[in-house]
Amino acid sequence: MLSIDTYREAFLSFLNKQVAVKEPENLYNPMVYILNLGGKRLRPVLTLMSAEIFGEDHSKALDAALAIEIFHNFSLVHDDIMDAAPLRRGKATVHEKWNLNTGILSGDVMLIVAYRFFENYRPEIFQKLARLFSKTAIEVCEGQQYDIDFETRNDVTEQEYLKMITYKTAVLVGAAMKMGAIVAETSEEQAQAIYDFGLNLGIAFQLKDDFLDAFGDPETFGKQVGGDIIENKKTYLYLKALEGLDNEHTARLKSLYNTTPDSPAEKILEVKKLMRQSGAAAITQKAIETYTDKAFAVLSKLEIPDHKKAVLREFGEQLMGRTV
Amino acid sequence: MLSIDTYREAFLSFLNKQVAVKEPENLYNPMVYILNLGGKRLRPVLTLMSAEIFGEDHSKALDAALAIEIFHNFSLVHDDIMDAAPLRRGKATVHEKWNLNTGILSGDVMLIVAYRFFENYRPEIFQKLARLFSKTAIEVCEGQQYDIDFETRNDVTEQEYLKMITYKTAVLVGAAMKMGAIVAETSEEQAQAIYDFGLNLGIAFQLKDDFLDAFGDPETFGKQVGGDIIENKKTYLYLKALEGLDNEHTARLKSLYNTTPDSPAEKILEVKKLMRQSGAAAITQKAIETYTDKAFAVLSKLEIPDHKKAVLREFGEQLMGRTV
Repeated sequence: MLSIDTYREAFLSFLNKQVAVKEPENLYNPMVYILNLGGKRLRPVLTLMSAEIFGEDHSKALDAALAIEIFHNFSLVHDDIMDAAPLRRGKATVHEKWNLNTGILSGDVMLIVAYRFFENYRPEIFQKLARLFSKTAIEVCEGQQYDIDFETRNDVTEQEYLKMITYKTAVLVGAAMKMGAIVAETSEEQAQAIYDFGLNLGIAFQLKDDFLDAFGDPETFGKQVGGDIIENKKTYLYLKALEGLDNEHTARLKSLYNTTPDSPAEKILEVKKLMRQSGAAAITQKAIETYTDKAFAVLSKLEIPDHKKAVLREFGEQLMGRTV
Repeated sequence: MLSIDTYREAFLSFLNKQVAVKEPENLYNPMVYILNLGGKRLRPVLTLMSAEIFGEDHSKALDAALAIEIFHNFSLVHDDIMDAAPLRRGKATVHEKWNLNTGILSGDVMLIVAYRFFENYRPEIFQKLARLFSKTAIEVCEGQQYDIDFETRNDVTEQEYLKMITYKTAVLVGAAMKMGAIVAETSEEQAQAIYDFGLNLGIAFQLKDDFLDAFGDPETFGKQVGGDIIENKKTYLYLKALEGLDNEHTARLKSLYNTTPDSPAEKILEVKKLMRQSGAAAITQKAIETYTDKAFAVLSKLEIPDHKKAVLREFGEQLMGRTV
């Protein structure tokens, strides 16, 4: 097993070799641009790591890892249009830097280009990878649709919310890891186990993101603390707060979520107080622990040496501690 | 061999069975809507016909045919956004009936759903179909990008224009036919021959569409005659007219193409006169013939019974005579 940094470097060097601008430039420039905006490269690193966990050289998984990363960036390009987001990782989004049509079309071509990287595997592996990829990609679209639908609904249940974040975020983490297992030609049972590890870690990660968005340290949290509250986002914290409050405070929280003040500091403070007071903050922390534990419980099913299980556990702990 | 109508009915019955609204409805409703707007179903019919040409039952090619039709409709949904088109087949386009975000996201899911229909074939066939599909889909995106780029360029060559319509339109016709051949497990050489048949017929068809847009009979041509001229579209006819005119008339044609009068009747008449006078109209008709002949020349390479060659020739003649 190599270090996460080594996998990341191997991936970046492969990315730079494989992804270059070609004709027509207006189609491929945005792809190269977004793929070079940086980021942790979490998903492709997981694919490489997973291949080695199951005894295959990580270099064999580079094509699958790149497919996952290109798909992830395709979804960012189209999501940024849908969210009318001007910035991504501190730089202009594709539709801002170019225009709407370029954002749509270069996103489309990225989705197709992602599939092409599976072509370097033999037919049986190709089919398994492409099948998992399509299933996952459809779930990601469904998750995005649920997220949009929830914006205008006031009766979203906890279960529905968990399904939304599972589809929108966690399935791609699970799929990234399962692809490493598929490339390593391990059993379906083992491949499913590593999928479940990634899926549960992905859910825990997203819940932690929700939590930190309200209660994180402004110094270390990458985004604006309170951003979800400013945007009246119905996160897990919010849904749990509604459940835990009496009628009077429920009404207050709902009314706060009907406002978008120019100076949101007071609103943020009061919402956070209600989230604590309702027990929602503690319940969310508990849920993060539960899903992290679920991920770690999968480790016992894996037929791999203990030192490799230790690598996965350490990775999970680093990820949830936000030091990766 | 069955009749084209029979293939179309078989396809429509399969489409209705396979494509239904499911959760989340806001994602899948637009897919069902656009797939039920009608149309000639030319591409999927060609896939079924091609499978039988090479001795396979057409029912074996239904999944591939549906993938092609769903992809075609995906491209319509996203192209209609890019063209800001309010109508498609006389009905509201998806982004008009719903909204921009729904148009983008439901288009995305259609592209992925298309791939899923190849999963019903065994790995070797699956890989061949998906590989051809990805290659073709990328070319369609590139063709769309060239089309967009050409709008703001004044130095488009004949060769560039032909490449654009080949990518944007003809490759999908070729691929539709080659998929039938792949499902029938014919040789790569035979599969390539039927691809070339479809490709050249596709180019001829698109050139004919350009020609009829200016010189068609308003009674039988489906769209508004003169539409390309109104929109100052640099079609084959236009490029050939520029080549054939003296400096004075070239300047006149260019200046007409800088106007968008409210009552375009006079402009249309004058542009058409220049297109005839320059020889462009005759040259375009000659080019249509040349590409149709190229398609028919491929027939001699096909190792199939004469009565099947006759079916292909008849189909091509009907298509080019616009009676299909």
